[in-house]
Amino acid sequence: MSKKKTILVTGATGFIGHHVVNELHNKGHNVIAFSRHQKKAELLSWWGKVKFVIADMQDPNLNIRELFGEPEILIHLAWAGLPNYHAMFHYEENLPASYHFIIKMVKSGVKQVLVAGTCLEYGMQYGKLSEETHTEPITSYGIAKDTLRKFLQIYQQNISFTLQWVRLFYTYGTGQNPNSLFAQLNSALDHKDDIFNMSGGEQLRDYLPVEEVAHRIALVAEHPECNGVINCCSGNPISIRRLVEEYILSHGSGLNLNLGYFPYQEYEPMAFWGEGKKIHNLLLKNDENFLREKK
Amino acid sequence: MSKKKTILVTGATGFIGHHVVNELHNKGHNVIAFSRHQKKAELLSWWGKVKFVIADMQDPNLNIRELFGEPEILIHLAWAGLPNYHAMFHYEENLPASYHFIIKMVKSGVKQVLVAGTCLEYGMQYGKLSEETHTEPITSYGIAKDTLRKFLQIYQQNISFTLQWVRLFYTYGTGQNPNSLFAQLNSALDHKDDIFNMSGGEQLRDYLPVEEVAHRIALVAEHPECNGVINCCSGNPISIRRLVEEYILSHGSGLNLNLGYFPYQEYEPMAFWGEGKKIHNLLLKNDENFLREKK
Repeated sequence: MSKKKTILVTGATGFIGHHVVNELHNKGHNVIAFSRHQKKAELLSWWGKVKFVIADMQDPNLNIRELFGEPEILIHLAWAGLPNYHAMFHYEENLPASYHFIIKMVKSGVKQVLVAGTCLEYGMQYGKLSEETHTEPITSYGIAKDTLRKFLQIYQQNISFTLQWVRLFYTYGTGQNPNSLFAQLNSALDHKDDIFNMSGGEQLRDYLPVEEVAHRIALVAEHPECNGVINCCSGNPISIRRLVEEYILSHGSGLNLNLGYFPYQEYEPMAFWGEGKKIHNLLLKNDENFLREKK
Repeated sequence: MSKKKTILVTGATGFIGHHVVNELHNKGHNVIAFSRHQKKAELLSWWGKVKFVIADMQDPNLNIRELFGEPEILIHLAWAGLPNYHAMFHYEENLPASYHFIIKMVKSGVKQVLVAGTCLEYGMQYGKLSEETHTEPITSYGIAKDTLRKFLQIYQQNISFTLQWVRLFYTYGTGQNPNSLFAQLNSALDHKDDIFNMSGGEQLRDYLPVEEVAHRIALVAEHPECNGVINCCSGNPISIRRLVEEYILSHGSGLNLNLGYFPYQEYEPMAFWGEGKKIHNLLLKNDENFLREKK
């Protein structure tokens, strides 16, 4: 078991953040959950168990010492307005907010920064995408994240800190945006609908359940020697149709798919998935259960 | 001859801008030269011939209608602090200043925007680089310009305007930064030095004289149908050693080169040059002299 750390988590009330705070708390770390949304926080399973800080990251007078003390690790998951991938606020607001907050933390002495990246950094590239594959984003969201990573990497030449850019692929689970595929699917299952409208479903994607993503983020945070770009992916492409069919089956439902109701998204290639050697090695080394589960 | 246009040029007192204002004025366009530097402007050949506006682009209260009237074309060349390619101000100051100024102009009705890009957007890629080659910048300067281009392209989905991203390769000539190779070389020639310290000089680069760059920028501005990424390059790689030797010879000097005095730059590939089909076609079509000059 690794040493207990004091870890500040931004976006703590978000889809990923909620699970990451839980995971870190369960592992015994001293978590500071940071968010703008107290009402949302009060409904989450970690409420009352970890220190909660409500503030606006963009406030120029943010007194980070007073608010957070001296966390050893920053896990930066905050990113407002998803999944509206094409809007300009990704560049105009989220990017400078994230950049200046992270730099402020680094200047105040944080030596390790973990940030959620996105597979949309890759843009319209097909097939297996590794940590060495160059990025070529085409969405406002993808470009903003890609730019944030590049400038944090450049900034490392000024002040030495560990950057763990955990590039997320597709995630599903509790707390997801209500417009997402799986939130819609869960709603259809709950309402015992007959028919579920979706795209053709032939897209090959790389999916992980949100609990597994949170497990991996926490594991990476415990291992600063694992850094740079870190793909957080299954490594196994699955068609969305099969994923949805298996999900429906596992819920014992007879929900019928209306395939082809929605068009395919223009900003996503039909088939791409991740190669995540770094996390894979970390999982092999650190989690004996991992191999057993896979057998 | 194309129709006379009202053209706002930012960075008008800069190395490229000075020549672009001259070229546009000589072609009969109505030029508005915009800069923060009046003293510098007063020394330039276009002073007194074109409208000059002094203001700070980053001033949030900038009244662009009052200052500029209604220009039809914006040529955005302003970019402070070159050639310090690694500093964070490219991201922290220049990028938002450029972005917000351009967007403000577009929102006020400018339908055509020409911006100077840079071959440093390509990063560590070797060989012939075309307008279709993906970008992979590694310097703060290169990433900031690359990001500006990407977000302006994204912005075109919100408001329709013509974006001409004129990607400059290497440029030499009057008014260049005193630390640049050719400014140093000119100084050595002026002082009748015996020895000129330089790198090994084996790097293959793509050079154009600044007057030719200004000629091309003006030509592109006159042709909005030529847009997107537009490489502004010779297309012919030349070793820096040969370029310098030829330059010294053409000045009738016997200056000796101390090759290998400076190391090669880590942030530049040893051999890369541009392919610029769009401008080449424009030159062929529009400038009969071009073919004659090449013969």
